[in-house]
Amino acid sequence: MTATERWLLPAGVEEILPPRAWRLDALRRSLLDLYWSWGYDLMFPPFIEYLESLLTGVAHDLDLQTFKVMDQLSGRVMGIRADMTPQAARIDAHVINADTPTRLCYIGTVLRTRPEGVSGARSPLQVGAELFGHEGEASDVEVVSLMLETLKVAGAEGLTLDLGHVAIYRSLARQAGLDEDARQELFEILRRKAVSEYRRYLAELDLSEAHRRRLAALVELHGGAEVLEQARDRLAGSGQAVVDGLDRLEAVSARIRQRYPDLALHFDLAELHSYHYENGLVFGAFHPDHGQALARGGRYDGIGEVFGRARPATGFSADLKPLLSFAAEGPAEGRSGGILAPADPDPALEAAVARLREQGERVVRQLPDTPGADDHHGCDRQLKRTGDDWSVQSI
Amino acid sequence: MTATERWLLPAGVEEILPPRAWRLDALRRSLLDLYWSWGYDLMFPPFIEYLESLLTGVAHDLDLQTFKVMDQLSGRVMGIRADMTPQAARIDAHVINADTPTRLCYIGTVLRTRPEGVSGARSPLQVGAELFGHEGEASDVEVVSLMLETLKVAGAEGLTLDLGHVAIYRSLARQAGLDEDARQELFEILRRKAVSEYRRYLAELDLSEAHRRRLAALVELHGGAEVLEQARDRLAGSGQAVVDGLDRLEAVSARIRQRYPDLALHFDLAELHSYHYENGLVFGAFHPDHGQALARGGRYDGIGEVFGRARPATGFSADLKPLLSFAAEGPAEGRSGGILAPADPDPALEAAVARLREQGERVVRQLPDTPGADDHHGCDRQLKRTGDDWSVQSI
Repeated sequence: MTATERWLLPAGVEEILPPRAWRLDALRRSLLDLYWSWGYDLMFPPFIEYLESLLTGVAHDLDLQTFKVMDQLSGRVMGIRADMTPQAARIDAHVINADTPTRLCYIGTVLRTRPEGVSGARSPLQVGAELFGHEGEASDVEVVSLMLETLKVAGAEGLTLDLGHVAIYRSLARQAGLDEDARQELFEILRRKAVSEYRRYLAELDLSEAHRRRLAALVELHGGAEVLEQARDRLAGSGQAVVDGLDRLEAVSARIRQRYPDLALHFDLAELHSYHYENGLVFGAFHPDHGQALARGGRYDGIGEVFGRARPATGFSADLKPLLSFAAEGPAEGRSGGILAPADPDPALEAAVARLREQGERVVRQLPDTPGADDHHGCDRQLKRTGDDWSVQSI
Repeated sequence: MTATERWLLPAGVEEILPPRAWRLDALRRSLLDLYWSWGYDLMFPPFIEYLESLLTGVAHDLDLQTFKVMDQLSGRVMGIRADMTPQAARIDAHVINADTPTRLCYIGTVLRTRPEGVSGARSPLQVGAELFGHEGEASDVEVVSLMLETLKVAGAEGLTLDLGHVAIYRSLARQAGLDEDARQELFEILRRKAVSEYRRYLAELDLSEAHRRRLAALVELHGGAEVLEQARDRLAGSGQAVVDGLDRLEAVSARIRQRYPDLALHFDLAELHSYHYENGLVFGAFHPDHGQALARGGRYDGIGEVFGRARPATGFSADLKPLLSFAAEGPAEGRSGGILAPADPDPALEAAVARLREQGERVVRQLPDTPGADDHHGCDRQLKRTGDDWSVQSI
């Protein structure tokens, strides 16, 4: 194997070099400051857990995305986190255990066995925020807004906000009398947006005409604000859960429109999102240059039940790395320039270097007997001897 | 299984909750700012790599510490990073590929199959810095100093700096004519500091009396500055590599003592460190409250050779989590207090909230119809309606 071949990284895995790494760090800081200013508390879930902790309450799809390793100490199987949202729910239910609303944010790498979506990342730097303990529209509005603020901080403009509601499909499928297997299969087909397959599958099922018509309508109910009115018409008679879902979509979108009048809104009643755990309003933010959502989230009430506490919950997350594409190229703010210091071991120089660094200056010390004395290491100034002392001069 | 049992974390794995997570984030920022001010460039190595990339050039010990998973896309085995230093060396040799000195720093979680040392961490948050391209004492002094500055920023005081030199043992073992197996076995015994086992093993080996005496001396050569003089005496006649090692220890310790006159120095010629890749001066920083080194590092010249470029290299790393024990308890600086805002949907309130957050204030919005209206979410002030507008008042 040649050195080049040895160095190839697995698909969907990347290294981040300077100056991009400094830009990533700057964005990370800005986002955590944002979440702080909204009252979200930072926590770092474990990187690895026993599989039954990691996957309880979440469905098969996340299981398939989770790398498994053996714990040599206990002989039990551990999983490497593929998504931090369920971890946050367990920490809310089982560790923090508050009666009042709890707001949590997090940032960290997750690993996935298979590439996710178009960008194909298998080790996204997941950043997100979750709000537990409130089931009304105000918490939906808050997390959607915080997601939009996240993208604004990253510099993304011209976004479209997609809104859907998973309970609408679920309620229609239940009412149609579909058994669990058929519901799952139909869900998978819908999630893949395989519209003609969906229609074929519906045609084969033993359904009343009204139920078939309503389920079939779902894949046509996407577009602007008119979709909600059309849905009320075409799904009429399908019960309170559907009406509640449409009411929630209307109320949340009205308040988001008021806050973000320039934002494009898109409704999609067939949108079921990535993972099975979501069960209410779901949302995603799209940008014309990116094939998949820059950030997404939704409501997943009750996921903590298996850990002893069913709490209402909603939140969003994003992969930080694609968001870097909206930042300017080149060094991050405050991460350029510097002062070159000679290798001279003079204690007065040592003192000058230490003083400048304490003031936040970047000081790069030259090393004796190395090639490339003309490599300025990105510095725009230098320390020069002036009498007994040293002073900063331009290069 | 009860909810409690389900939630148990694997040994050596932890979650970090607020307010500790904010303190960790604050320390992280301070350290990256420190490395920046010393001219170290941030990079994030991949979390997962093909096993042969990850382990080429490093030895069996790191292999045992590395979790392996199957790449479903290529069918090849991947390893999850257990140490970022070899990754940094490969990025220097193979990606950055400069002729002049390169300074890199990094921070991120690594995973280990078995607990490391007394603290028993299996998912340390590794932070570190590496300096490539210079083989003289100036680079040893720089990285040792930066390690000490790291611990100073974390608030650790009363440290002892341990210094050793791996080439001294290696040279003695080679000169004694030990074959590879015996050298490895002896190295392992020494690394475990199993002194009586070491002596027994030495006694059984077929060695000349002079070689046996010198190898036996190693485990007695530890203590203050006098150790270096004793070593020159007891290891006399063992060749240039040993003399060079002692000279380097003397020169580096003299310069460190000059910079840090209050630092306790401890020499240990039997210190071989954690991993096999180190081959020159090695060092660690110890604190009386911690059984194992808070930070450690050493020289590992030439590790990048298998990737096409053998460069001199030295660096250090630390687990950030134990360093948090030196910070004050309670919230991190700037991460306390805040302004409580009522749930009222008044647009004037929305505007006031947005304005305050932009100014860096923490504003926590109350949610309608939730219990615990007396939960202030850590806020010390509140937004109150005054006429048509809203103003900040104390709670």
